Amino acid sequence: MDHGTEVLLGLFVMFVAAQVGAEIAQRLKLPSVVGKIAAGCVLGSSFLGWAQVTEPFELLAELGAVFLLFSVGLETRLEELKKVGRVSALVGVAGVVLPFLLGAGWAVLSNYNTPKAAFVGAAFVATSAGITARVLQGMGVLNRIESRVILGAAVIDDILAMLLLGVVTALQGGEGINLSSLLVVLLQAVGFVALIALVGTKVMRRSSPLLEAPINPLSPLSISLAVCIGLAAAASYLGLAAIIGAFLAGMAAAETRQRHTLEKQLQPITALLVPFFFVVTGAKINLGDLGSASALSALLVVTLLAIAGKVLGCGGGAASLGRKSALIVGVGMVPRGEVGIIVASLGLQAGVFSGNMYTLIIAMSLLTSVIAPPVLSALLGGKNLEPSPLRVEGLGDGKSPP
Amino acid sequence: MDHGTEVLLGLFVMFVAAQVGAEIAQRLKLPSVVGKIAAGCVLGSSFLGWAQVTEPFELLAELGAVFLLFSVGLETRLEELKKVGRVSALVGVAGVVLPFLLGAGWAVLSNYNTPKAAFVGAAFVATSAGITARVLQGMGVLNRIESRVILGAAVIDDILAMLLLGVVTALQGGEGINLSSLLVVLLQAVGFVALIALVGTKVMRRSSPLLEAPINPLSPLSISLAVCIGLAAAASYLGLAAIIGAFLAGMAAAETRQRHTLEKQLQPITALLVPFFFVVTGAKINLGDLGSASALSALLVVTLLAIAGKVLGCGGGAASLGRKSALIVGVGMVPRGEVGIIVASLGLQAGVFSGNMYTLIIAMSLLTSVIAPPVLSALLGGKNLEPSPLRVEGLGDGKSPP
Repeated sequence: MDHGTEVLLGLFVMFVAAQVGAEIAQRLKLPSVVGKIAAGCVLGSSFLGWAQVTEPFELLAELGAVFLLFSVGLETRLEELKKVGRVSALVGVAGVVLPFLLGAGWAVLSNYNTPKAAFVGAAFVATSAGITARVLQGMGVLNRIESRVILGAAVIDDILAMLLLGVVTALQGGEGINLSSLLVVLLQAVGFVALIALVGTKVMRRSSPLLEAPINPLSPLSISLAVCIGLAAAASYLGLAAIIGAFLAGMAAAETRQRHTLEKQLQPITALLVPFFFVVTGAKINLGDLGSASALSALLVVTLLAIAGKVLGCGGGAASLGRKSALIVGVGMVPRGEVGIIVASLGLQAGVFSGNMYTLIIAMSLLTSVIAPPVLSALLGGKNLEPSPLRVEGLGDGKSPP
Repeated sequence: MDHGTEVLLGLFVMFVAAQVGAEIAQRLKLPSVVGKIAAGCVLGSSFLGWAQVTEPFELLAELGAVFLLFSVGLETRLEELKKVGRVSALVGVAGVVLPFLLGAGWAVLSNYNTPKAAFVGAAFVATSAGITARVLQGMGVLNRIESRVILGAAVIDDILAMLLLGVVTALQGGEGINLSSLLVVLLQAVGFVALIALVGTKVMRRSSPLLEAPINPLSPLSISLAVCIGLAAAASYLGLAAIIGAFLAGMAAAETRQRHTLEKQLQPITALLVPFFFVVTGAKINLGDLGSASALSALLVVTLLAIAGKVLGCGGGAASLGRKSALIVGVGMVPRGEVGIIVASLGLQAGVFSGNMYTLIIAMSLLTSVIAPPVLSALLGGKNLEPSPLRVEGLGDGKSPP
């Protein structure tokens, strides 16, 4: 078989495996991301040893992550930030700080050096609002105060998580952390994020009329794709993660009048590319890493810390809503989903994480995504967990409603 | 700069260059494909020497070609084949046979061996209905008999061209052509095409209701993408061109009830990937190859033969419509557009074409695409050459109307 045929065949097998995995997961009422990663795991070294993750697959996987984060950004509106109110803000911030401290603290105790421990902490921070939104939507409780707080806090959470990821990625270059280098990195990351998030969104908002396309229905899409790839390259050039640029490009595009069209047009692109990201991610998992008692207990500890960080942090932030509502908010923020998975694969790629740590973080991200929905559903007192009509590629199983 | 950043930056530059090139071409009233290839040419070895076409770019370019041909197939309906009538059928067949003979004959006279000459002939065969459809649509004459004959014949042309391409690709392996090997190859290509075109379309038609997606709006797309990649891999495995499989997958998908949705969903994917195909194609052109008097005269001869093949072949097939109408049909079939370009790049990739021949065929494809529209417009007696509201990625400038 020649090389071209091999690559096409590999793409076919990965793509189909992802669809089959997602379908099985859906029938088991699990988030579809679990099925896609499991499919990759089966194809990969753990079982078949079939999927050789060579450069072409890495590229498609990276593009999948880039456009996935672009679509997450597209759902993150600055305007909503102003509306989220004090409680959401508190939930968002506390839900970043506490998980980071718990994750990084655990890593330090596990003998990771400070920059690497900070990276581990960053992997604890992410929240996948998509999984929670699907549960809330399925139960018809999107209008409850807890739902609105969760979705508002998720916006803040996303932005802070990207900022944090920028800082910890840039830190990996140095020999350690000293105050001045930390300051430089922090300024650089904050500067980039602030520049794009504030100036970029303004520019996009102003240029919205220019994007109107009497002569070309695809032009706003092409411009947005160019901005997405360009900012991903810029972020990567600055030593930040490429996905941060893509996320910010999405945020900027969310300010345009065309954002609903863009969201719709992006779906086929993510439907094509995101499965490769999840399958490649799964293929790199070595299940053997979880085969010892010590590894399993580490997974238990990490997962409990990850849950505790969000339940206590976010729940604490929402304390003013009363105890039960605070608990609902806390549980709703637990799923790490695709963002945690992306951070783990960045860590592996950058050589920060060992294969062990990579598998651990992926497993934790999946576990939190699997555990939270039924608990949330029980807390809300409902039974309805029907799959929602919205199954958006990449966001696990649902997307934040408009 | 690390490798990842380099790749992202390269993608960004190529993507933006393609958009800029397309925009400039549009303003000069040229097909946008001319602008995209010119952009690649500027980035490539001819001028800046900037675009290094490494494996990641090759992969995206190939996927671009695959999905481009999938979308061409999506516009090719078996049902319309039954409607095209005797004249369209004659035009389609004659418009394949004569250009093939002229192209292959010229190549034999230029000392190419028989298999290679057959490949050159195949590059003469393609017709880009998109460019012509745009002119016809812009002039509001889609209902004229000539327009209907052209669009009908283009369907037959596409199918025969793919079949021919399959045969000539498979022939390149052998040491020459003997009757039995030709027969095997022919049977193989015809078998594959017939199997998918007849059985595949029937299966897709029957499974149309299954694709209806109450639980998942993207599912028919995912299935179609899987079929497309799978058939591309299968075609490649059989020694045919991957794009043949993609084209047939498109034809099969065109039989489903969801084909309009699929067409729409495919647009963002082609908008993202097809520019890489054109830019990579352009980057491989060495303009120096056209720098001598003999090369220019070869280009002149090849272009005249390419025009004559279609005008005489297709015009002859349409003789029953009267002289002027026959001429309109003949000229309408002249543009080679993206399909000729794909055949050229396949030839280069397979080592069948020298860089010289590659540049020659690309230049011929572009010239025919540039020359035909104004002539067609003059023949139809109109002035309206406004860009149509439909500018579909990849199909140059327009798409076949429904």
